[in-house]
Amino acid sequence: MFRKSFENVRKKCPLIHNITNYVTVNDCANIVIACGASPIMADDKDEVADITTLCAGLNINIGTLNSRTIASMLIAGKRANELNHPVVLDPVGAGASKLRTETAMRLLEEVKFTVIRGNISEIKTLASGSGTTKGVDADVADRVTEECLDDVIALAKGFAEKTGAVIVITGAVDIVADSKTAYCIQNGHSIMASITGSGCQLSAMTAAFVTANPERPLEAAAAAVAAMGLAGETAHARLSDLDGNSTYRNYIIDAIYNMTPEILEKGAKYEVR
Amino acid sequence: MFRKSFENVRKKCPLIHNITNYVTVNDCANIVIACGASPIMADDKDEVADITTLCAGLNINIGTLNSRTIASMLIAGKRANELNHPVVLDPVGAGASKLRTETAMRLLEEVKFTVIRGNISEIKTLASGSGTTKGVDADVADRVTEECLDDVIALAKGFAEKTGAVIVITGAVDIVADSKTAYCIQNGHSIMASITGSGCQLSAMTAAFVTANPERPLEAAAAAVAAMGLAGETAHARLSDLDGNSTYRNYIIDAIYNMTPEILEKGAKYEVR
Amino acid sequence: MFRKSFENVRKKCPLIHNITNYVTVNDCANIVIACGASPIMADDKDEVADITTLCAGLNINIGTLNSRTIASMLIAGKRANELNHPVVLDPVGAGASKLRTETAMRLLEEVKFTVIRGNISEIKTLASGSGTTKGVDADVADRVTEECLDDVIALAKGFAEKTGAVIVITGAVDIVADSKTAYCIQNGHSIMASITGSGCQLSAMTAAFVTANPERPLEAAAAAVAAMGLAGETAHARLSDLDGNSTYRNYIIDAIYNMTPEILEKGAKYEVR
Repeated sequence: MFRKSFENVRKKCPLIHNITNYVTVNDCANIVIACGASPIMADDKDEVADITTLCAGLNINIGTLNSRTIASMLIAGKRANELNHPVVLDPVGAGASKLRTETAMRLLEEVKFTVIRGNISEIKTLASGSGTTKGVDADVADRVTEECLDDVIALAKGFAEKTGAVIVITGAVDIVADSKTAYCIQNGHSIMASITGSGCQLSAMTAAFVTANPERPLEAAAAAVAAMGLAGETAHARLSDLDGNSTYRNYIIDAIYNMTPEILEKGAKYEVR
Repeated sequence: MFRKSFENVRKKCPLIHNITNYVTVNDCANIVIACGASPIMADDKDEVADITTLCAGLNINIGTLNSRTIASMLIAGKRANELNHPVVLDPVGAGASKLRTETAMRLLEEVKFTVIRGNISEIKTLASGSGTTKGVDADVADRVTEECLDDVIALAKGFAEKTGAVIVITGAVDIVADSKTAYCIQNGHSIMASITGSGCQLSAMTAAFVTANPERPLEAAAAAVAAMGLAGETAHARLSDLDGNSTYRNYIIDAIYNMTPEILEKGAKYEVR
Repeated sequence: MFRKSFENVRKKCPLIHNITNYVTVNDCANIVIACGASPIMADDKDEVADITTLCAGLNINIGTLNSRTIASMLIAGKRANELNHPVVLDPVGAGASKLRTETAMRLLEEVKFTVIRGNISEIKTLASGSGTTKGVDADVADRVTEECLDDVIALAKGFAEKTGAVIVITGAVDIVADSKTAYCIQNGHSIMASITGSGCQLSAMTAAFVTANPERPLEAAAAAVAAMGLAGETAHARLSDLDGNSTYRNYIIDAIYNMTPEILEKGAKYEVR
């Protein structure tokens, strides 16, 4: 099933509009290409409606947001909704500043999202209106473990119910849920937390996957999450003793580039709850 | 002849001012260093005139343009013209949004460019005032092939005549033309389309080459294009089965770093029409 | 002694707020993670006070500054001072434009810095109020050599006396000085000048080191400088004939990732004057 989702990305090569932070933007562009889609980055309010119209899907990432780009996010999101294009939200650092929390909440009010992807602290912030986000990483007290998995699944399903979006919570176990069904994905490697932007990259790639599979956003998002985790495993297996997080970053993108739909199908480790 | 152009870059180490997009800016800086020049990135309207004055050449790239940086592009471009410094334009995504097309057209009106480098869709947009640019990649219908090569050469020469600039159209075959002479360069590898920013990098490197060779912009631009293509070949030859577009990106810059003027002279594949 | 400084970074994992340029921001984030700390990048005036409050230390880098981010630098710097958080200044290109020089001088007036790190041209500009900075690299006439080392040490100690900050001047020999004591650090490799952003990365990492060692900023900054130089040596030893500056950039970050406090202690080469 994940195979089909991935095949569609490679076959349709959807053009994805990204309004994203300047920290990880290059990696986002390269991973979108690696998975078979085509990225365009544009964030000025005077062009985002045009670019969204030209593209087939939109990815909004609020890291390094500012007053200029917040306006652009709203314009692009509404335009994508009008056109019925899939839209992904990555609420980077929601809970870490009033501006990020309020911007994320405002985006949720004014734009209908297909997928919302964050770490547990970011998603809790959005779901509850308050949070304990410490920077851009999940708070230790929030970490998703087997012990609290049921609670996290319930949170994801509830927030999916409320927003109509597929909710993706990434961590040691990744949860991908709509209001009824949750994929618990076990792919990945703990060293993925040692590179900046693995979450940003996943959000950009998820936009490619749901855009290429408009009828099945839950499965498409789960496929993207499994692909990212599997790439993390493949990349880890290549590391020599001298390699560290910078080489690892390159190897993850390389692994997506070389991944086939069959490899994904075979390597995906998940259960459905 | 390409050897001499490249030797001058390594010998003169020209300082190049770049106003460029935030997607590929790091790669642009590293390839400018790799070829032997020195980059400085600055895009605020209150400093670009100073920075342009300090530098020997200017590279303007309109990817991720915004109202703040558009003003800076105009100031810097005019200042470079006053100082008789070479200026390169990379009209990223011209045709993809009204803002990009209009900004590119306005830059063409108010600034005299030494080189304009884009893919065929971008150059067609500028030459005709309309285009079918799909995002930041050339439209499939526009792709440069052997069959349409004569038409593309005529387009490049005509646009060179009109603007007084050397026109560089990159694709499967790269065209570098002034109003009378066109280099058709066969270096490169198709996998170069799989990394973000190979065009941006080439534009930045072209600025270094034409700045170091002020008397011969046509040959200097052709040398830069051949160097980029040759680096793409060298980098491809290094790839293992596990490597993908991210490692490939690093290897291209590495290949420029290790390329000597002699290697370029020997490896360049082109004809003059 | 450097061992202890590095151990504290790995143990405390301080959260570091970075207001930094878009050229090297990704490398800054990855090296902060590599050394054991956690980065967050945020530059909007409406959130920097929140983010600085959340973090334990602040790194201000003026490369690609603009009117919007200059305001944010001032707000964040003052907030960090109120909270008694360490603040690092990287005056990228001070002396290259009026805007950069004036901004750096204004930051020095309004914010108390724990560490100021630049090349000799940048530091001279700040210490004297004028300079001959050519772009973002040190001017040739300014290069730190054994011959002029005593003068540079005197400059660093004098400027440390004046500002109350630890002064770091990087070059072939790196000087780390307060008003009384100077470390002259001999680690590093000349190829480090061939990658963009090794200085920016060092400043970000220095913020992590001084934040984790609030009682001993001089030693902590010296430890960060030695770690960066040692990483440059380790990375150089890995290079194959085909590798160039792009791969080297990755290897430096990898080397920090794999460096232990013991390796640093053993590999640091310095004298105290």
